[in-house]
Amino acid sequence: MTENQIPDVVIARLPIYLLKLNQLLRDGQKVVSSAQLSEMIGIPATQIRKDLSWFGGFGKQGSGYDVIHLMDQLKNILNLDRIWQMVVVGAGNLGKAVVEYDGFRQKGFEISAVFDNEPDRIGSRVGHLVVQDVEDLESYIKEHQIYVAALTVPASAAPSVAEKLVKAGVRAILNYAPVRLLMPKNVEISNVDPVLSLQRMTFYLPRK
Amino acid sequence: MTENQIPDVVIARLPIYLLKLNQLLRDGQKVVSSAQLSEMIGIPATQIRKDLSWFGGFGKQGSGYDVIHLMDQLKNILNLDRIWQMVVVGAGNLGKAVVEYDGFRQKGFEISAVFDNEPDRIGSRVGHLVVQDVEDLESYIKEHQIYVAALTVPASAAPSVAEKLVKAGVRAILNYAPVRLLMPKNVEISNVDPVLSLQRMTFYLPRK
Repeated sequence: MTENQIPDVVIARLPIYLLKLNQLLRDGQKVVSSAQLSEMIGIPATQIRKDLSWFGGFGKQGSGYDVIHLMDQLKNILNLDRIWQMVVVGAGNLGKAVVEYDGFRQKGFEISAVFDNEPDRIGSRVGHLVVQDVEDLESYIKEHQIYVAALTVPASAAPSVAEKLVKAGVRAILNYAPVRLLMPKNVEISNVDPVLSLQRMTFYLPRK
Repeated sequence: MTENQIPDVVIARLPIYLLKLNQLLRDGQKVVSSAQLSEMIGIPATQIRKDLSWFGGFGKQGSGYDVIHLMDQLKNILNLDRIWQMVVVGAGNLGKAVVEYDGFRQKGFEISAVFDNEPDRIGSRVGHLVVQDVEDLESYIKEHQIYVAALTVPASAAPSVAEKLVKAGVRAILNYAPVRLLMPKNVEISNVDPVLSLQRMTFYLPRK
């Protein structure tokens, strides 16, 4: 398995499969067909089988996939059989919400530090963390070998902070700022853009 | 054009096309090929052409798409040639961040009210709004014919608030709570799940 061959869009679908498998597991289901996954996700079953075939066979034709086995394999493929430490930069409302969000830890991401540049925020508590001075961001990342960061600063500050993160060694940025960031090829960036979701839904709303 | 025939996954890609076209427009580009869009988005050009062909032809073979014309058409298809009023339920850190986020208005969504059930939050200011009592949520939605809501309450409260929203007439919910909500068929829901983005990126990070 080499990373270069597999299309990004395939990789992007794997976490969705993992999420749905997790739901099935909670419901006590042990085996799932690509047809059922297709129904749950809204992607053709042929696409699901094709996506998974990039990584070898996970099920026999006609007998479906073993839920736990497939989950384990997907976690392994996605590099999720470990906990990733993550830093949050920006301790405003959004940064606080991200730190307090309890969906990260159980899915493999542990927020280990939060940073800001405003004197009245530095030293204050957010969740179980104390806000650190952004001046110490680079040394923290290097010392703790942090690869993952969430960016919750204003759009105007995002490019320079992102540059700092990358310089210090971060390789994956979850960008909440409403701005496009240009990154080197070896750095992954995901933009959290709720507008895209809203604009999908309006298609189904009554027309004037 | 009937809504039932077109796959949801096609509709979900249209806002991404719109976003990229907007970037091209800002850069002063007037015509774009499906090949260039493909490069920008990471979706095959054949897929882009197929998606757009659901809605009739937008360009001549070989001559590319007119950026402004295609944007106008996509906005029309997505029901975005108007401003949608949106309510936010939950005025904690996340709700405040959503209200203060300046990416909504310019993309067609105007937050017109924010609600909470905590006495010390009701009456306080968030951005340019005053937090209203969630008791008044249903009457507000009916009176102002609100179709769109963002749900920023804790997971435990989300199902009952969502039910209220739907009962009052909301048809599209942007759900930030880390919980799956079961909705009637005529209600659209989008879950904002940053974990899916993180789990995509870890694929590309160094392995232990």
